[in-house]
Amino acid sequence: MARGRFITLEGGEGAGKSTQARLLEAALTAEGRRVLRTREPGGAPGAEAIRGVLLGQGPQGIAQWDGIAECMLHFAARREHVVRTIRPALEAGTWVVCDRFADSTMAYQVFGQGVPRAVFDALAAVALEGLAPDLTLVLDIGPAEGLARAAARGETNRYEALDPDFHERVRAGFRAIAAAEPARCAMVDATAAPEGVAAEIMKVVRARLGA
Amino acid sequence: MARGRFITLEGGEGAGKSTQARLLEAALTAEGRRVLRTREPGGAPGAEAIRGVLLGQGPQGIAQWDGIAECMLHFAARREHVVRTIRPALEAGTWVVCDRFADSTMAYQVFGQGVPRAVFDALAAVALEGLAPDLTLVLDIGPAEGLARAAARGETNRYEALDPDFHERVRAGFRAIAAAEPARCAMVDATAAPEGVAAEIMKVVRARLGA
Ligand SMILES: Nc1ncnc2c1ncn2[C@@H]1O[C@H](COP(=O)(O)OP(=O)(O)OP(=O)(O)O)[C@@H](O)[C@H]1O
Ligand SMILES: Nc1ncnc2c1ncn2[C@@H]1O[C@H](COP(=O)(O)OP(=O)(O)OP(=O)(O)O)[C@@H](O)[C@H]1O
Ligand SMILES: [Mg+2]
Ligand SMILES: [Mg+2]
Repeated sequence: MARGRFITLEGGEGAGKSTQARLLEAALTAEGRRVLRTREPGGAPGAEAIRGVLLGQGPQGIAQWDGIAECMLHFAARREHVVRTIRPALEAGTWVVCDRFADSTMAYQVFGQGVPRAVFDALAAVALEGLAPDLTLVLDIGPAEGLARAAARGETNRYEALDPDFHERVRAGFRAIAAAEPARCAMVDATAAPEGVAAEIMKVVRARLGA
Repeated sequence: MARGRFITLEGGEGAGKSTQARLLEAALTAEGRRVLRTREPGGAPGAEAIRGVLLGQGPQGIAQWDGIAECMLHFAARREHVVRTIRPALEAGTWVVCDRFADSTMAYQVFGQGVPRAVFDALAAVALEGLAPDLTLVLDIGPAEGLARAAARGETNRYEALDPDFHERVRAGFRAIAAAEPARCAMVDATAAPEGVAAEIMKVVRARLGA
């Protein structure tokens, strides 16, 4: 059986990743593909437990992590996600649509928080053992616009509360990742209406993955 | 001010690590030293939150981790422990007595569970940035005797439930670590009465650290 394709959606707060993950799942399913939609941090029982600790809903309600410890937690959760959920699905021929993946750790912790890139590289090698997305869609939007969307949605998280410079570094980080790996990544203008963004995404998916 | 010394206690289940950590703290304190006694996993707020997830008391009550994910969780907790608790204490001249440290991850996950040594080395480099104990006391006891002590104490954990071969591999692991790093490690016969083991430990501490 043909291996499934692994598609990740990346971008800053409120860029529309979760919205587009749902629309992409629907579009691929309508074409007759088996699709698994999942998200990070989380996507497996152990990863969800780590998510609770990371987002401060753990037993102690941790407010702030050392940057390196935070990277290690994200990659521990990602390891469980890959081993329990993503790899088995791909091997069974299912396409995986994932809302955030390793690029979010690179953008938020390395570009945003200043964790050394060598730390990211070492942890990625240990946790992923070479697994990489077949296609990464980087949803690009100005941080102010994205944060306004996220605020209008009515939930907040601790990243949204960080200073504007942080979110500019994250955006620049995603752009740098896309520029460094053009074969894997595609930048998508995320300022259009949801249906317009979805159409652009399906165009890229067809061009890159032949879907 | 002179930097404090970093002493770790290692060994299998029921070897007497926690008992000897208390006795060593008391003996060093009686000599007029400032001593911080701490234990792993834990020893800092974020590390305690990770401990809860690791030991299955987290939101989902995880039964079993992927070995690499488990190593990453231990080193994430260790990173918080080192940054928030151990390093500041040592820099303030306090002696740190720590009940389990990185050697437990090597013995349990690498020797016991078969995680590749290269994974341990990569994570240790990222998390510890070169920090190592000044002295590691490896409490050696037959697994059957240690497990019987632990069982008599009336608590159990998920390691104690693992098969006897696992505990033999862990014991062999601790012995291999001590043999490979004789300048840092001392093997201690843990089968004697607590006061006898404590006297042996103080002899080693005096000889190695001049306490
Ligand atoms: N193209 C769009 N135009 C306008 N609003 C949008 C668009 N896409 C999503 N939204 C709305 O913006 C909010 C954020 O969208 P969504 O939750 O999909 O973003 P996200 O990237 O997943 O955010 P987060 O980073 O917080 O998870 C939601 O209320 C959503 O309905
Ligand atoms: N030298 C000893 N002789 C006999 N019993 C002992 C000795 N040292 C400790 N014990 C008892 O054995 C039990 C286990 O000891 P302790 O809790 O110190 O071991 P431990 O190495 O910390 O165990 P664990 O790995 O479960 O944390 C306790 O009930 C303790 O009182
Ligand atoms: Mg989202
Ligand atoms: Mg103990």
